[in-house]
Amino acid sequence: MSARPLVTLLTDFGTRDPFVGIMKGVILGLCPDASLVDLCHEVPAQDILGASFALHMAVPVFPAGTIHVAVVDPGVGGPRRPILAEIDGQVFVAPDNGVLTHLLATAGRTQVRHLVAREYWRDPVCSSFHGRDIFAPVAGHLAAGVAAARFGPEIGDPVLLEIPRPTVDAAGAIRGTVVWVDRFGNCTTNIAQAAIGSLVERGGGRIRVHAAGRPLGSLVGWFGAVPPGEAGAIVGSAGYVELFCNQGDLARRWALAPGDPVALEADGTP
Amino acid sequence: MSARPLVTLLTDFGTRDPFVGIMKGVILGLCPDASLVDLCHEVPAQDILGASFALHMAVPVFPAGTIHVAVVDPGVGGPRRPILAEIDGQVFVAPDNGVLTHLLATAGRTQVRHLVAREYWRDPVCSSFHGRDIFAPVAGHLAAGVAAARFGPEIGDPVLLEIPRPTVDAAGAIRGTVVWVDRFGNCTTNIAQAAIGSLVERGGGRIRVHAAGRPLGSLVGWFGAVPPGEAGAIVGSAGYVELFCNQGDLARRWALAPGDPVALEADGTP
Amino acid sequence: MSARPLVTLLTDFGTRDPFVGIMKGVILGLCPDASLVDLCHEVPAQDILGASFALHMAVPVFPAGTIHVAVVDPGVGGPRRPILAEIDGQVFVAPDNGVLTHLLATAGRTQVRHLVAREYWRDPVCSSFHGRDIFAPVAGHLAAGVAAARFGPEIGDPVLLEIPRPTVDAAGAIRGTVVWVDRFGNCTTNIAQAAIGSLVERGGGRIRVHAAGRPLGSLVGWFGAVPPGEAGAIVGSAGYVELFCNQGDLARRWALAPGDPVALEADGTP
Repeated sequence: MSARPLVTLLTDFGTRDPFVGIMKGVILGLCPDASLVDLCHEVPAQDILGASFALHMAVPVFPAGTIHVAVVDPGVGGPRRPILAEIDGQVFVAPDNGVLTHLLATAGRTQVRHLVAREYWRDPVCSSFHGRDIFAPVAGHLAAGVAAARFGPEIGDPVLLEIPRPTVDAAGAIRGTVVWVDRFGNCTTNIAQAAIGSLVERGGGRIRVHAAGRPLGSLVGWFGAVPPGEAGAIVGSAGYVELFCNQGDLARRWALAPGDPVALEADGTP
Repeated sequence: MSARPLVTLLTDFGTRDPFVGIMKGVILGLCPDASLVDLCHEVPAQDILGASFALHMAVPVFPAGTIHVAVVDPGVGGPRRPILAEIDGQVFVAPDNGVLTHLLATAGRTQVRHLVAREYWRDPVCSSFHGRDIFAPVAGHLAAGVAAARFGPEIGDPVLLEIPRPTVDAAGAIRGTVVWVDRFGNCTTNIAQAAIGSLVERGGGRIRVHAAGRPLGSLVGWFGAVPPGEAGAIVGSAGYVELFCNQGDLARRWALAPGDPVALEADGTP
Repeated sequence: MSARPLVTLLTDFGTRDPFVGIMKGVILGLCPDASLVDLCHEVPAQDILGASFALHMAVPVFPAGTIHVAVVDPGVGGPRRPILAEIDGQVFVAPDNGVLTHLLATAGRTQVRHLVAREYWRDPVCSSFHGRDIFAPVAGHLAAGVAAARFGPEIGDPVLLEIPRPTVDAAGAIRGTVVWVDRFGNCTTNIAQAAIGSLVERGGGRIRVHAAGRPLGSLVGWFGAVPPGEAGAIVGSAGYVELFCNQGDLARRWALAPGDPVALEADGTP
């Protein structure tokens, strides 16, 4: 027997309305055996790039064949296309607005389809809730075994947003930005572990971190390597440099938010 | 083999306490194969009519046989009856305080029972948590296959709350109220799509909307039909006129809340 | 066929990040048939004793064999041990920091193991997310049938925190503290039902309650035994005296928080 189909949901719907539960009702009506997982529903309203980064953090741990429904969709009801994307063995159902940008940017094999086969949608389709009327039913049919090719033709031009990339200045310092602030106030940056190798070598393993123009602390191995209440940086769980305050809320104390500048330099850098 | 039993939960318990998880533990202890869905748990504390409207929005998409547990229960521990209602092929377990008002008001076939068979409850019953001790165990036994008739005798007088209904004034304008504000600040009214047909005809398809006594905008087909930051109205996903601000939070900008007056008039109305 | 494995999760991760969803992805990748339940994820950040109390409230209703993953872990990445505890027929995967204190303090049979078998962890292990890399995979393997003994050797010295206990003064009054404030503003104390028996006898069944040094009301049988807007106390669903305001938020009105003093005295007490 094959494993139970696994379907995740990521939206900006929050949890105070029954919208996510409604999508689950649609999915389970089509595939009662599906196992449903909430990725998160508190993405800031209409923050497409934030949702893209959240998927980028979460998707790698899921098993092959997982179906991810991602609905952050400020253009709902308009001309933006609904799509189905197969990316490295996992499947995504989403609006074509860039919400899959990070995943598509780092993917190996991808195949993206324009969802056009209305026999797999609810009828009628409400202009303000494609999550219920298009994305959830497509996910339910996928989970129930309908082949991806049945939902629509392949397309070659999915929307990709510009991802802010870190730069290296003349002195060798890496300049990036905060891209995600988590519940603890930890600030994930866009500076990947792979990008700091040469810096680690030059600094003899010691790297100084600046945020919002001020010295923040050093890159260390774990939160407890700095005293409680003090700040530092680690390579976080998503593979990016992450700023933190040990047992405190860094984002609040330093008033940091996505977009704020971060710099890393080897300890010997002038 | 039949599909896995589907049980939903709607409460005003929020998510910061383990209360919802506790109810799920009780249900899965009785029916390990049940599939559980959260409808929502952020109904304003003790807002029975709000919970009734949330059920009204969510229930229609669920498959026949779904069991819905609805616990918004300010009278817990007192004389109000616990009930089991079969409404158009779905099953509800709830306090008899009006939380099923919208569903019962629009239902075709209904059968309501007074839960009295204590062999399906936990023992003892805590006066402050019937969700754990009465409603969850009844739902678990239902999911496990116990027939509805076993839980108690039929009753003919379930509590129904008064639902605010829109009115039509002498000039033909429809006057209703906001009944639900969602996470995005969109404001669902109690003016149903069916009620605006003659208005659409008279206005040549153009309808003006007022909220809280001020002109708000027009009834349009989708959010993007008005420029970003401007307000309008659509027929929302629950089949009611819904006020919105394109890419903004209308409820915050206009300080709208449930109960606030809304009026619709054909464009030719003086 | 045996029942589906049941795995619960309790964290201080909140719901705005995908961290809980990531842990579920790991678990379902190892045991697709697992049934997952959220206990709660809004434990105040790094509040180990609060998490311990939440488990104490929730765990008793779960069936034998349930696997509970509890990750409130301010020392993540440091020397604190990851552990697996079997307590009265249920299984716990957690950091060894006292998060199981209440359960271990009242348990009958317990067996605690130090998680050391890295073949059941993800590789590499990130210093800041053992929930993903140690606790979730161990839970997944447990759910898939791996025997507890495979994960590491038994230990006899799990960390236990000091639990504030109520005292009885010379006049027979019981002095305790608030330990949990729920979503409704109800305040659970550390005064257990068993502790108030003699007080009930002496007071002829009437007990006066003080909170934060002021008279609050009487111990009653259910919320509605005091008029709306007035305060009282009941024996709450976890078996402890709980302070409430009927249809109001006591914690807000009285500015009560965990740690605040509560006293109970028989009505005849001077």
